[in-house]
Amino acid sequence: MGGTHMKLLHTADWHIGRTLNGYSLLDEQKYAFKQILKIAKDENVDGIVVAGDLYDRAIPSTDAITTLNEMFKELNIDNKLPIYAISGNHDGAKRLNYGRDWMEFNNFYINTLLDESFTPVETPDAQLFLLPFFDPMDARVYYQKMGMSEEDVKNIKTIGDAMSLVLKDIYQKFDPAKKHILVTHFAISPSATDIELTSETTSKVGGLETLNTSLFDKFDYVMLGHIHTRFASPSENIRYSGSPIKFNVKEAKVKSNKGLYIVDTNKKPNNDDFKEILPGTDLIVLNETWETLLDPDFYSKQPVNKDWFAITIKQFDRTKHVSTNVRAQLQEIYGTVVELDYDNIEKKNTDSDSSKNINKLSNEEVVDQFFESITGDELSKEQKSLVDNIFVELRGE
Amino acid sequence: MGGTHMKLLHTADWHIGRTLNGYSLLDEQKYAFKQILKIAKDENVDGIVVAGDLYDRAIPSTDAITTLNEMFKELNIDNKLPIYAISGNHDGAKRLNYGRDWMEFNNFYINTLLDESFTPVETPDAQLFLLPFFDPMDARVYYQKMGMSEEDVKNIKTIGDAMSLVLKDIYQKFDPAKKHILVTHFAISPSATDIELTSETTSKVGGLETLNTSLFDKFDYVMLGHIHTRFASPSENIRYSGSPIKFNVKEAKVKSNKGLYIVDTNKKPNNDDFKEILPGTDLIVLNETWETLLDPDFYSKQPVNKDWFAITIKQFDRTKHVSTNVRAQLQEIYGTVVELDYDNIEKKNTDSDSSKNINKLSNEEVVDQFFESITGDELSKEQKSLVDNIFVELRGE
Repeated sequence: MGGTHMKLLHTADWHIGRTLNGYSLLDEQKYAFKQILKIAKDENVDGIVVAGDLYDRAIPSTDAITTLNEMFKELNIDNKLPIYAISGNHDGAKRLNYGRDWMEFNNFYINTLLDESFTPVETPDAQLFLLPFFDPMDARVYYQKMGMSEEDVKNIKTIGDAMSLVLKDIYQKFDPAKKHILVTHFAISPSATDIELTSETTSKVGGLETLNTSLFDKFDYVMLGHIHTRFASPSENIRYSGSPIKFNVKEAKVKSNKGLYIVDTNKKPNNDDFKEILPGTDLIVLNETWETLLDPDFYSKQPVNKDWFAITIKQFDRTKHVSTNVRAQLQEIYGTVVELDYDNIEKKNTDSDSSKNINKLSNEEVVDQFFESITGDELSKEQKSLVDNIFVELRGE
Repeated sequence: MGGTHMKLLHTADWHIGRTLNGYSLLDEQKYAFKQILKIAKDENVDGIVVAGDLYDRAIPSTDAITTLNEMFKELNIDNKLPIYAISGNHDGAKRLNYGRDWMEFNNFYINTLLDESFTPVETPDAQLFLLPFFDPMDARVYYQKMGMSEEDVKNIKTIGDAMSLVLKDIYQKFDPAKKHILVTHFAISPSATDIELTSETTSKVGGLETLNTSLFDKFDYVMLGHIHTRFASPSENIRYSGSPIKFNVKEAKVKSNKGLYIVDTNKKPNNDDFKEILPGTDLIVLNETWETLLDPDFYSKQPVNKDWFAITIKQFDRTKHVSTNVRAQLQEIYGTVVELDYDNIEKKNTDSDSSKNINKLSNEEVVDQFFESITGDELSKEQKSLVDNIFVELRGE
């Protein structure tokens, strides 16, 4: 511990076990982790905050479990770094709860249930409140258990209602001699006039309910997970670290770099707190004509056979390339093509080549795409989980 | 620690999360656990051995996870009792591995992978080798990793081949100054002449390959899990503790009591080592005529509305009882009837009443029974797992 101040590494949204169009991101996640560990050691931090969505799914694969366990072990057991973690909406709160009481013996704190959030981790300088993702129903169950009247319990309707109550109880635990740090996993937006205000506690952003920053103004600092870019941070002391890696083509298009924050409880937050995490294998987005893509002058300047490519072919005329195996030809030049698309309007009808390489798709994704092609709808979150678990079983775990 | 000797509580096959025809056994398992804890404290043991099959399934329900976590917490954190545990064939070895490195900080040792089995837990008096369930493929992977020639790896065909190699390596770790205790989870039978010997290491019992006791003769004591009755123990120092509770009607019919062993490393094993665990709710098996079952003189002597009943009706003539709701009438008298059967030959055709109470069946079991009634076959282990996981998901975890 630093004694009178505290230096924390803030990361979030690791989503261990996530795939991109069937390509495992585990190696990329391990590569990012090595950098997180190196930054932690170089900066001599007092602890690592992981603000939720440790796994990508409630019932992660055994590979994901083994990987996360190894990462935590390397940080906490091998390098004696305290960990302050919470579960996010992607994690299975009750599953991830297993073993947490033993982890505390080594300064590894992980909260996954609302009940656990009201006792802060006490350091000489600060109180760390670890508030996992929860929903209004969790709050109703908790407050009913605590003896709240049925009437009042029923009035907990939105996440704003729930969060107001939870924070009120957390504020009761404040030690005025210390800094107060919150680690949590929600969508939080500024309470600004350009957002459609729906209540004192929540706003609607693009139709989705988000919490207002004003709810959290008693904290010295709030470390967030949930949104994958740090540019969504609603204020200078309420920040998203973003995810350590790019998870999809949309994120790759934005061209914003990934990283983490180093937060010193004695310093005013600023842009220098950000430390970049470099990709091992980057995701390169190309939107070019077929002729350009096949032009050696163009592709010799690309990181071919090293990074991954998401390619959209502009103005592609399928009638001129009836016998061309588009994907095979591009892969021969570029290496791994994780996504292939066409920007001409009638692509659905003229495209005889699958937009994804079916051999590279996971079984789960084959089902997803089949469903989408038949029904025109995407699988719901629940349906995806269901499909995933069928294949977990079929793989014979 | 006892200093020059060691007193261990030996239990196994908890199968937390198991159900009986849709009736949860969690309460019964918790009731047995309380007795295990009480015996441990009364006997002042130096540790608790749980010899595999902690859960009933590789991907247990969140209720099962929470329950097992609480049990371990009560033993190891609240009561500071060391735990020596392994995974069995029902457990998911890689899933159960999560967090084990932190548990060791508090003398909770759990091995789930073959690789972990060669380092014993050292106590002043003994070496405890915790060897989880594994299959020949696990041994092949392990020995390949250890640099064994491809030829030799290919020769690991049976569990006998694998076990011989594993034990040879374990024997290398023996400290001659100490007692040597093995905790493992396999079918082991005496190497007697009345068993069809198939090799030096294994026998066939009822067509199933089992390991011979002779393989294990270098150990002072072997604590086994896998077979649910202590009467399957193959020798006086190689013993099954049996499961703490009855899991099915077949076990209830045998009328053997359940319990655990208290093993003192300085004493010769004997029958007094057995400590009984009483059922909270017993499982009573009745095989009587309809008239007897409805006779107050008979049922007033039964633990009605307290224990659970598995009832087979003798010589039942359905034509005489066309409008009788057999199950409802029996439940009114007896309370919980977990199984209802008929011993007349043409029961399948004359029985208009379902043999199981569909309202009490879990969703999983409804599917099982539907499948069976349509195809005449039982669901395979893989199919059952698949069905289970679909419902885990549908319950919205």
